[in-house]
Amino acid sequence: DSSSQSNLRGFDENIAIDIITKTKLHKVQTNHTIDSVQGIQHIPPLMASMTSLYLKTPIHSTRLPNTHLKLSNVSPNSISFTHNPTRNPTRIPTRIRCGLIEPDGGKLVDLVVPTSKRDVKKKEAMGLVQVKLSRIDMEWVHVLSEGWASPITGFMRESEFLQTLHFNSLRLGDGSVVNMSVPIVLDIDDGQKDRIDATGATSVALVDSEDNPVAILNNIEIYKHNKEERIARTWGTTAPGLPYVEEAITGAGDWLIGGDLEVIEPIKYHDGLDHYRLSPSQLRAEFEKRNADAVFAFQLRNPVHNGHALLMTDTRRRLLEMGYKNPVLLLHPLGGFTKADDVPLSWRMKQHQKVLEDGVLDPENTVVSIFPSPMHYAGPTEVQWHAKARINAGANFYIVGRDPAGMSHPVEKRDLYNADHGKKVLSMAPGLERLNILPFKVAAYDKTQQKMEFFDPSRPQDFLFISGTKMRTLAKNRENPPDGFMCPGGWEVLVEYYDSLAASDSDRVPEPIAA
Amino acid sequence: DSSSQSNLRGFDENIAIDIITKTKLHKVQTNHTIDSVQGIQHIPPLMASMTSLYLKTPIHSTRLPNTHLKLSNVSPNSISFTHNPTRNPTRIPTRIRCGLIEPDGGKLVDLVVPTSKRDVKKKEAMGLVQVKLSRIDMEWVHVLSEGWASPITGFMRESEFLQTLHFNSLRLGDGSVVNMSVPIVLDIDDGQKDRIDATGATSVALVDSEDNPVAILNNIEIYKHNKEERIARTWGTTAPGLPYVEEAITGAGDWLIGGDLEVIEPIKYHDGLDHYRLSPSQLRAEFEKRNADAVFAFQLRNPVHNGHALLMTDTRRRLLEMGYKNPVLLLHPLGGFTKADDVPLSWRMKQHQKVLEDGVLDPENTVVSIFPSPMHYAGPTEVQWHAKARINAGANFYIVGRDPAGMSHPVEKRDLYNADHGKKVLSMAPGLERLNILPFKVAAYDKTQQKMEFFDPSRPQDFLFISGTKMRTLAKNRENPPDGFMCPGGWEVLVEYYDSLAASDSDRVPEPIAA
Repeated sequence: DSSSQSNLRGFDENIAIDIITKTKLHKVQTNHTIDSVQGIQHIPPLMASMTSLYLKTPIHSTRLPNTHLKLSNVSPNSISFTHNPTRNPTRIPTRIRCGLIEPDGGKLVDLVVPTSKRDVKKKEAMGLVQVKLSRIDMEWVHVLSEGWASPITGFMRESEFLQTLHFNSLRLGDGSVVNMSVPIVLDIDDGQKDRIDATGATSVALVDSEDNPVAILNNIEIYKHNKEERIARTWGTTAPGLPYVEEAITGAGDWLIGGDLEVIEPIKYHDGLDHYRLSPSQLRAEFEKRNADAVFAFQLRNPVHNGHALLMTDTRRRLLEMGYKNPVLLLHPLGGFTKADDVPLSWRMKQHQKVLEDGVLDPENTVVSIFPSPMHYAGPTEVQWHAKARINAGANFYIVGRDPAGMSHPVEKRDLYNADHGKKVLSMAPGLERLNILPFKVAAYDKTQQKMEFFDPSRPQDFLFISGTKMRTLAKNRENPPDGFMCPGGWEVLVEYYDSLAASDSDRVPEPIAA
Repeated sequence: DSSSQSNLRGFDENIAIDIITKTKLHKVQTNHTIDSVQGIQHIPPLMASMTSLYLKTPIHSTRLPNTHLKLSNVSPNSISFTHNPTRNPTRIPTRIRCGLIEPDGGKLVDLVVPTSKRDVKKKEAMGLVQVKLSRIDMEWVHVLSEGWASPITGFMRESEFLQTLHFNSLRLGDGSVVNMSVPIVLDIDDGQKDRIDATGATSVALVDSEDNPVAILNNIEIYKHNKEERIARTWGTTAPGLPYVEEAITGAGDWLIGGDLEVIEPIKYHDGLDHYRLSPSQLRAEFEKRNADAVFAFQLRNPVHNGHALLMTDTRRRLLEMGYKNPVLLLHPLGGFTKADDVPLSWRMKQHQKVLEDGVLDPENTVVSIFPSPMHYAGPTEVQWHAKARINAGANFYIVGRDPAGMSHPVEKRDLYNADHGKKVLSMAPGLERLNILPFKVAAYDKTQQKMEFFDPSRPQDFLFISGTKMRTLAKNRENPPDGFMCPGGWEVLVEYYDSLAASDSDRVPEPIAA
């Protein structure tokens, strides 16, 4: 009925792997040592498990059936990458041979200035025209600096912007294609443009809210910011009330400035969560240390419940069945801008921590880290970005749920996107052929088993869909959900969060949290 | 100044080739006969010039500089295609080896039922659930039936629709990519869907306004028609007043029905212009007959003036300089739906005819034909469709002007698209790598030479921009434009057209015709 339909809304990530193809693995195991990356030392215990490193042949790419895509194998040449030396100033960068999926463009981009040159660059920045960064701009600088958007080396110039809007992909110099679905752009207003034009500058300094130089943008190109077209092509609507649009586009300048970034220092937030913010390079090193022969990424921006856990455990089981020996889960909550009614990052991280402490997921084969991107809520367009960034972090499997990156239409009484489009678009997206897309079925609370189970349409009466609204009402009223819906520790965090909300602002009625 | 800026609006196609790269030609000339295609017999004299046919090596594809695209050569294997037997019922289909650019997907699609099976198919259609075609639907059936959209074999199913909206391209079974930027879809309403669902039919009959069966759509797939998303992603705006949207989408049904088409008879309009409507197969045969070693297509939907003629003549000159021996121009006015203020097809064809009779273009190396597609006015998105369809017709060079397929923003006081985006997007579009894009400069009336010339920015005072508004005012007032702007015969046709408008509807003030 329609009410259980709308209840499904909260269960974007309540899911089961639908189809997985078989793949053969050819492994050559070789002893090989690897230097640890400094950042890893700060990682919570569950991430610290070590295995020796093996040289592996590349993980083979497989395609799901019922898409008419070419089988494309990862190039048999292992690639090499360099740990970000700026995070490990006392060590000589370590070149490792790795068997993980190759980053887009063949090489992880690293835009952070080496330690030895930071003072010079800071001084250089002081002499340049300044462009102030918003919070979201800063998140993009972070994203770009660590190579999540590899092979992009800075805010987009017009040719990249146009390819992103029209094709959701970029063609590289060698003719190959990488996915790129979301514009990563920096706006300036008429006054800023005039100032830059007047000096004839080819570089500008990007500064934070206190005018501290954060980065230099080189070989700049300034071009028109057609906001309407950008919004329409990215979101498939221009309706008022899109969170990212209202936060970052409506009031933005009428020009965009692209160029190559030099980021003076690694971006830090000093919010007690920086140790969770592993760069793609650090994540790759971690997967290597753990001897992962498959990495499956799970993007989320909501509290984890046992339906998620079921899915992740089930995915691992299936990957083992396929012949992988050590599939590792990248549990990868989004850490950038989210809309006001989403549970804030700090509370989510507390909740995830509890869930992991409760043993719902196995720390031995789980890496929890924060994905620094801001959220667009652009559905099928954005899910491609979420997947592509995870390739760069070493994931070759991507779990996709119902209506990924979706939300309710801001004006009409319906979901903004067709719930199946995200998965379909992802499976057909240019530049993502190497990534294995794992779509999943809905999970719900099975009253007969008193736990979360994959929904069985032959006995619908046994299942209970616990909507976001229901969950919020329970948490607000300090009631408990059915046993087995979420571990008690995780639930307590949610209750605490809603208590804090009620205390701080009794007028503000947050929307339901998605499950 | 701003007035000459806005005057530029009317000169979308007033232009000069900007850059052409050099290419080497390797030709093997061989005597080879070819059967003529029946349709060609009705072609006006200027199309009838004959040369003997030579077997040529494929025309080499070249890329323009300043795009970072891979140099891709046409496959050295000549392709074969079959003349549409339905247009030549008394002859055995002739297989020819040809050196023209390969159609998308390697083979021209032909969806017209062979003559011998038409009665059977008509009877079959009578027994099916019927879907009525609008005028624009019928134009799409025409487009599909002749393979302009090769390799598409009917109205799009959801996977094609989604790829078109998100990627402007389709991935084929072999992993190759073809361009497809404009959705070719058929809408049905709830009642029609219910009727089809109730019968469990897998095929439906498509009928014209008088319920005559036109085609059968097989292996149907019905899916949601999200109009807002379709409009936003195709036009980059959802502003009210987009001509195609108002004509074909706003009032359309909430479902789309895709499938494979069988078109019972060739689509004819009986408007005295059918002899101009050559299919891609017929055009290819014509280019072969003329021994073309380069085909350059010029899309237009407006009267031809001497600025256009200058451009086309200059293009041929440059192609000859590049080493081509016989470049042929495809002067290809769009014949489907256009907005109310465009000059209607019949008047445009009269005007084109006069221009050609006046000898402004050389009939020996010019083919005039009608492109049956309706017009979207979707700028950079649509220009890809215009170019892609011409590949299927055998063109390997495509002339692109300022703001192709553009129009004024329906609500705001500006052009809907950035005038340079069409050319830029075209040069980067997936699936169009084989096509040589020829961008051009603005032409204007050179007062010192008393003729249309490429605008020379070093002496702007010598040039006169004759806007569409100016042209219309002159024609309405039976005044003449400056000598050398348009041949007198062509100008008379325009005067006659505006006279007829004034006579039939003195209230209706048509918008300026674009130049």
